[in-house]
Amino acid sequence: MQTIRVMRFLSPSKSRFPIHFFSSTPSSNSPHLLLSVGHVLRFSRRFMDQDVACFAEVTGDYNPVHLDSEFAKGVGGFDRGRVVHGMLVASLFPSIIASNFPGAVYVSQDLKFKLPVYVGDEVAAEVQAINIRQIKKRFIVKFTTKCFTNEFHPAVDGEAVAVLPTLNLTK
Amino acid sequence: MQTIRVMRFLSPSKSRFPIHFFSSTPSSNSPHLLLSVGHVLRFSRRFMDQDVACFAEVTGDYNPVHLDSEFAKGVGGFDRGRVVHGMLVASLFPSIIASNFPGAVYVSQDLKFKLPVYVGDEVAAEVQAINIRQIKKRFIVKFTTKCFTNEFHPAVDGEAVAVLPTLNLTK
Repeated sequence: MQTIRVMRFLSPSKSRFPIHFFSSTPSSNSPHLLLSVGHVLRFSRRFMDQDVACFAEVTGDYNPVHLDSEFAKGVGGFDRGRVVHGMLVASLFPSIIASNFPGAVYVSQDLKFKLPVYVGDEVAAEVQAINIRQIKKRFIVKFTTKCFTNEFHPAVDGEAVAVLPTLNLTK
Repeated sequence: MQTIRVMRFLSPSKSRFPIHFFSSTPSSNSPHLLLSVGHVLRFSRRFMDQDVACFAEVTGDYNPVHLDSEFAKGVGGFDRGRVVHGMLVASLFPSIIASNFPGAVYVSQDLKFKLPVYVGDEVAAEVQAINIRQIKKRFIVKFTTKCFTNEFHPAVDGEAVAVLPTLNLTK
């Protein structure tokens, strides 16, 4: 696993586990940084009430496991109440890729939802490049895609393939 | 393929191809309708400017292929301009499942993004139950999941597995 520059994203006092993200902004004496196999790009955030409400509105997914705590605990079987839409959590993956490679186009995404992500949980998402092929002026990159709410087990796990217009990391 | 009740969702004059959705509201003399292998549930909608802007805001995915028509045509290679976020289109699948089975919990979703969905396109999404297993009081259902913007080729194709609290169709 290669590292570019590691920045602490949340202060230790606010974070239940260490979260970092990689920034690829080259320093004045460093060359342009290129994505290569092994690179990991990370980002973390919490999805709050208003995020879940907004996502429900824009997608039309008003499943009460996301919106009604008692229903989530009862019918849903989620002991801590409302859970974030899986597709909202999974949207962190294309968001990370696109923020580093504007113009990236998604080809595929496999997702396994293994653990619930509760509203307000800190979610650490990471994508790791595991295969890169060049076709003409584009790059087809396969990533592993994982989200964590604890140090040990991914809440969401899978793989994505995206076509990138460049391998230059933009931040 | 079984049908329950077919309703035309858009008038023919507004629709480039026939779109239907199935409503399972039982008539006064019909029994409760249960999901079974072969059932298809459909829904269609158009994602407009404000939907894409809202999705970008809530997910943080500001990829300019979704927001900047010239960039989408140039770097993105999309000849008709801005495209809808793939994960927003794909969110139709859990939305359809949850609207028919409140309390449904997603286990997995595989997605292949085969054709662009442009902002304003009419998108017909369908999920078809292809396998149903009962474990205690829950039902593990595998669906094929497809979105179309024309009659012939899916724009998004894949499979999902969800745990349903019931097989009773609620609408």
